[in-house]
Amino acid sequence: MVQDWKTLVAAKRAQVAKALPQEWRLPSSILDTVSPTADTNVLDVPAKCGLLTEKEIDITENHDATDLIAKMAAKELSSFEVTQAFCKRAAIAHQVTNCLTEMFFDKALERAKYLDDYLEKEGKPMGPLHGMPISVKDSFNLKGTYSTIGYVSFISRPAAESNSALVDILLDNGAVLYVKTNIPQTLMTADSENNVFGRVLNPNKLKLTAGGSSGGEGALVAMRGSLIGVGTDIGGSIRIPAFCCGTFGFKPSVDRVPFGGQTNPVLDGWTGIMPAAGPLAQSPRDLRLFLETVINSKPWNYDYTALAMPWHPVEDKKTLTIGVIIECPTWPVQPTIIRALKTATDKLKQAGHNIVMLEKFPSFAAATQLSWTFFDIDNEGTGFKHIEASGEPWVTSVKDMYTPPPEGRKVKSLGELLDMNEERLKFRKDWLKVFMENKLDVIVAPGSHKTAVPHDTFRMPPYTVMWNLLAYPACIIPYLKADKNIDLPDSRIPDYDPEAVDGAPCHVQVIARSEQDEELMAAVEMISKVLLS
Amino acid sequence: MVQDWKTLVAAKRAQVAKALPQEWRLPSSILDTVSPTADTNVLDVPAKCGLLTEKEIDITENHDATDLIAKMAAKELSSFEVTQAFCKRAAIAHQVTNCLTEMFFDKALERAKYLDDYLEKEGKPMGPLHGMPISVKDSFNLKGTYSTIGYVSFISRPAAESNSALVDILLDNGAVLYVKTNIPQTLMTADSENNVFGRVLNPNKLKLTAGGSSGGEGALVAMRGSLIGVGTDIGGSIRIPAFCCGTFGFKPSVDRVPFGGQTNPVLDGWTGIMPAAGPLAQSPRDLRLFLETVINSKPWNYDYTALAMPWHPVEDKKTLTIGVIIECPTWPVQPTIIRALKTATDKLKQAGHNIVMLEKFPSFAAATQLSWTFFDIDNEGTGFKHIEASGEPWVTSVKDMYTPPPEGRKVKSLGELLDMNEERLKFRKDWLKVFMENKLDVIVAPGSHKTAVPHDTFRMPPYTVMWNLLAYPACIIPYLKADKNIDLPDSRIPDYDPEAVDGAPCHVQVIARSEQDEELMAAVEMISKVLLS
Repeated sequence: MVQDWKTLVAAKRAQVAKALPQEWRLPSSILDTVSPTADTNVLDVPAKCGLLTEKEIDITENHDATDLIAKMAAKELSSFEVTQAFCKRAAIAHQVTNCLTEMFFDKALERAKYLDDYLEKEGKPMGPLHGMPISVKDSFNLKGTYSTIGYVSFISRPAAESNSALVDILLDNGAVLYVKTNIPQTLMTADSENNVFGRVLNPNKLKLTAGGSSGGEGALVAMRGSLIGVGTDIGGSIRIPAFCCGTFGFKPSVDRVPFGGQTNPVLDGWTGIMPAAGPLAQSPRDLRLFLETVINSKPWNYDYTALAMPWHPVEDKKTLTIGVIIECPTWPVQPTIIRALKTATDKLKQAGHNIVMLEKFPSFAAATQLSWTFFDIDNEGTGFKHIEASGEPWVTSVKDMYTPPPEGRKVKSLGELLDMNEERLKFRKDWLKVFMENKLDVIVAPGSHKTAVPHDTFRMPPYTVMWNLLAYPACIIPYLKADKNIDLPDSRIPDYDPEAVDGAPCHVQVIARSEQDEELMAAVEMISKVLLS
Repeated sequence: MVQDWKTLVAAKRAQVAKALPQEWRLPSSILDTVSPTADTNVLDVPAKCGLLTEKEIDITENHDATDLIAKMAAKELSSFEVTQAFCKRAAIAHQVTNCLTEMFFDKALERAKYLDDYLEKEGKPMGPLHGMPISVKDSFNLKGTYSTIGYVSFISRPAAESNSALVDILLDNGAVLYVKTNIPQTLMTADSENNVFGRVLNPNKLKLTAGGSSGGEGALVAMRGSLIGVGTDIGGSIRIPAFCCGTFGFKPSVDRVPFGGQTNPVLDGWTGIMPAAGPLAQSPRDLRLFLETVINSKPWNYDYTALAMPWHPVEDKKTLTIGVIIECPTWPVQPTIIRALKTATDKLKQAGHNIVMLEKFPSFAAATQLSWTFFDIDNEGTGFKHIEASGEPWVTSVKDMYTPPPEGRKVKSLGELLDMNEERLKFRKDWLKVFMENKLDVIVAPGSHKTAVPHDTFRMPPYTVMWNLLAYPACIIPYLKADKNIDLPDSRIPDYDPEAVDGAPCHVQVIARSEQDEELMAAVEMISKVLLS
C-alpha cells in the first residue's frame, strides 16, 4: 500500500512480458494494428503470421481435443509437439487480444515430455486427457503460479502453494497446463478489463468486448490457442465470453465440476447464487470429454464442496421437446440473435424435434433484479475492498455497474436474505411448472439480447443470470454471425448499431433443469448436429 | 386468538378421538396402566390385547414391507386386509403411546380396496409400494387432512389443499396412507410433546422419551403399527426416535428424498442446515425399498427443491473400511452405547471388515454450537411466534432448550451468517480429510451419548447434528439393549441412571459422505447382516 500501484503493475507486466519467448513475438506490422478501437478480425493471424509451422497449424486448426488426444494415445503425435503448438498459438493470440495473465510454457513443455515418457514406459496414457494442453481462468490455483485475478493488491501475494481441486483432477487425467487467462476487475462484469493485465479484445473484431468474466478464455479458445478452456460462471461468465467470441460454453449445475481451492474475490462464506466452473470449447464432444472426465474422477474426493453425483447415462431420445423463448418484454433482443433463434427453431422443427413456443414464463426483469441483490449480499463489499486496498481506480465497467448510490451501499439484514431465498424458490417453482406442463426436455433461448458490443457497453446479462438464479445448467452454441445487411435497425433497441456489431458471432443458449447436465450435454449434441452440420 | 387455547385443543382432541373406532378401543385394564411415569413395556400389547385376529398378528409381526408387498402382488394377501391390520395395530399403538395425530382409516380402507381392484383389473401392481400402508409425520400434507404440527394456532387452519411432493410419490407408487404421527412443539426437541396432541411415550418403557421430532413414527414403527414411517431430520429428528424406540432410521442427504410441500414451522427462505425426509423401518431392505422407490420416481419432477440425482448402483465391495468413533471428549457416552459400539466393532472385525479406530476428528462441541447458531438463524423466531399466537405455553423441552437469555434473543447479522458458512465449510474440509486419509467407506459412531432417557431430559444431540451440519447421510441400526447388570454407573456421567434406562434399545450409527446414500445403504445392509444375523 505504501508503494504506488502503478509501480507494482509495471513490475508485474514486466514479469508477464518476460514469460513470452522472444522468438514467438509478432512483427510490429501486426502489433501496430492492435487497438481496442480497431475493426480488425485477428482470427487468421496465427495461420498467417509465419510463426507456426505447417504441422503446428494443422494440429491447432484441423482437430478438436478429442481427436488430438486419440492421436497422442496412438503415438501419431507427441504431447510435446501438441503442447508446443498450443503454447505458440496461445502466445500469438495473447499478443493480439491480451487474453493471458500467466504463461508457463517451459513448465508445460517439461510436463509434456514427462507424459510422452510416461506413455512410452507404461504403454498407456495417464488418463483421458493425456498430453492435452488445457487453459484455465486466472482464479484457478496452480502450485508455484500467481493468482492475481486482476487486483493490484494481490500482486504482492506469494505464488499458490497448492492446486485448485479441478487443477489436480486435470493433471491426474494427464492434462498439460500452460497458461492462465484474463478476467475483469472483481470478476463481476462482462468486460474483461483490469488494471494489472489490461483489457481482453474480441478476436472477431478488436473493438468489441470479448465478454466476461472468463473473457480471456473466450478470446483464446476462439483463436484456437486452446481447445478446452476452463472458466467460471455466476451470472454468465462462461457463456458471455463464449457467445461474444463464438465458442461453445457450458455452465454446469453448481458443484458438479469442483469449484474449490480457487483464489476468490469474495468471502469464503458467500451464500445465495453460487458459481460453477465449466468448459469453453470448439466442439460439443470436447465439452463432453471435459465433463465426463472431470466427473468420472469423483471430484468429491478432491473437494469438500463438490457434489458426489456420478455422471449417468441418459435415455436415448430420437427427438426432443424444446421450449423456445425468443425474448422477454423487458429486454428486446437484437435482430441478429432473433434471426439465429428463429433459424435454429425452423431447422430443429424440420429435423423432427417438437417445438413449443413459450409465451408465458417467469419475469427476467424480476430475476435479474433479485440476482443482483444476491450479488450484493456481502455487506463488507469485499470484492471492492480488494480494489481500494492498493489505491488503483475502478475500471469503467465496474464503475458503470457498481457505483453505489449517493446515500451509500445499502446494508442488508439476515431477514432480507431469507426473503430473497423465498423469492428465489418461487422462481424454481414456476420454472418447474413451465418444464412439466410443456413436457420440455430443454429450453432454447437467447444467451443475451446483445452480441458482443463495443467495450464497456455490455452491462446487464438477464438472459444468462436467470439460469444461475435457478442453478440450472446452460450451454451456448455458437451459431451464425451478425450481418448489417440482414439484421436491420430495430426501433425498440436504440443502442443496437448494425455497423458496429457486423460480423460478431451469434448463438443460441440451451438450458436444462438443475443437475441435468447429462441431459443438457446430450441435447447440445443433438441440437448442434442439426444446426452446424 | 380470542378463543381460549384450551377450548381449541379440547375441540381438536374430540375430533381425533372420534377418528378412533369404538371397536378398536383397548380395555381400561390396559389403558389404566398407561402413564408417562410407568416402567411398562407395551410392545406386546397389540398381540395380547385380543383386538387383532391371528392373521392380523401374523401380517403385522412376521413380515417386513418388502415381503408383504410381494405377497400382495402375488394376491396371497389383499391390500384391504393388510391395511386393516395396520390400521388396527396403529390404533392400538396410539392408545398406549399417543403416537398419532390424524387417523383416516376409512379413507385408507377405501384406497386399499381401490388398489385391490386395480390389481385385479390391470393385472399388475400400481407400483413398488402397491397396497402397503405407510405412515407420515404430521408435517406432511395430504389433501383434506389437517397439518397442525402441534401448534394450537394452527388448529383453525383449513385442511391441506394439496399433497406434499413425497405424498404424491408414495401414492403414485401404490402406497396407502392411513395415519399421521406426533411431534414436539416447534419440531426442534427430542421430546415429542405439544399442547395439541400431548406427549409420545416410548413403547419400550413408557417413562422414557420416544425421541423427536419424529417421535410418533419411532413409537409407531417400534410397535409395528407401521413398517415404513416417514420422518424428517434437521438435527437428528429421524435418528433420535429410531434409537430411542429401537428401529432403523435413515436420514438421507439433503433434497434426495423430496422435502417440499410440507407444513413448516419456519420461514420458507430458511438457510444454513437444511432438513431431510427419510424412513424409519424394521428392516434394512425396507429402507432400501423406500429410498429406491422414491428416488426412482424422479422427485425432481414433483418438487422444485429436490436434487435431480438418480439412484445409482454401487461398487460391490466384500469388505468395508470402517472408521469407528467411540466418543468425543465433550460428551462421554453411556456404558450401554459404548458396549453396543465395542461389540459391533469386534463383530465387524471378525467378519473381515477393516476397522480404523478414529482418535482425532473435528470437534463435536464446536459443531453442535455452530449448528444451534444456524437453528437460530431466523431473527423473527417464527417457530416461537406460532406458539405465542394462541397463548398456549411453551412445553418443558422447548423451554429448557430455547428460553432466551435475560437480555433477549440475539439478533444476527448477514455478516455473521457468512462467517458461520465459512466455519461450516471448514468442518466439511476437515471431515473429508478424515475420510480420505483413512480411506474410509463409512464411519460407525454413537447416534447419541444417551439411550432413551426419562421425559424432558434428553436435550442436545451432538452425535446426530454433526452429520446434519455436514449434510452427510446417516443411519441408525438398532442393536442390543441397556442392561443395568452389565452397564454399570460411570463417574464421568452423573446423570446416567442404569435403573432408569434398563431395557432401553441401544444402537450404532453409520455415516457416509454427502450424497452417498447408495453407499450408506449398502454399508447398512452389510453391517446389519453382521450384527443382527
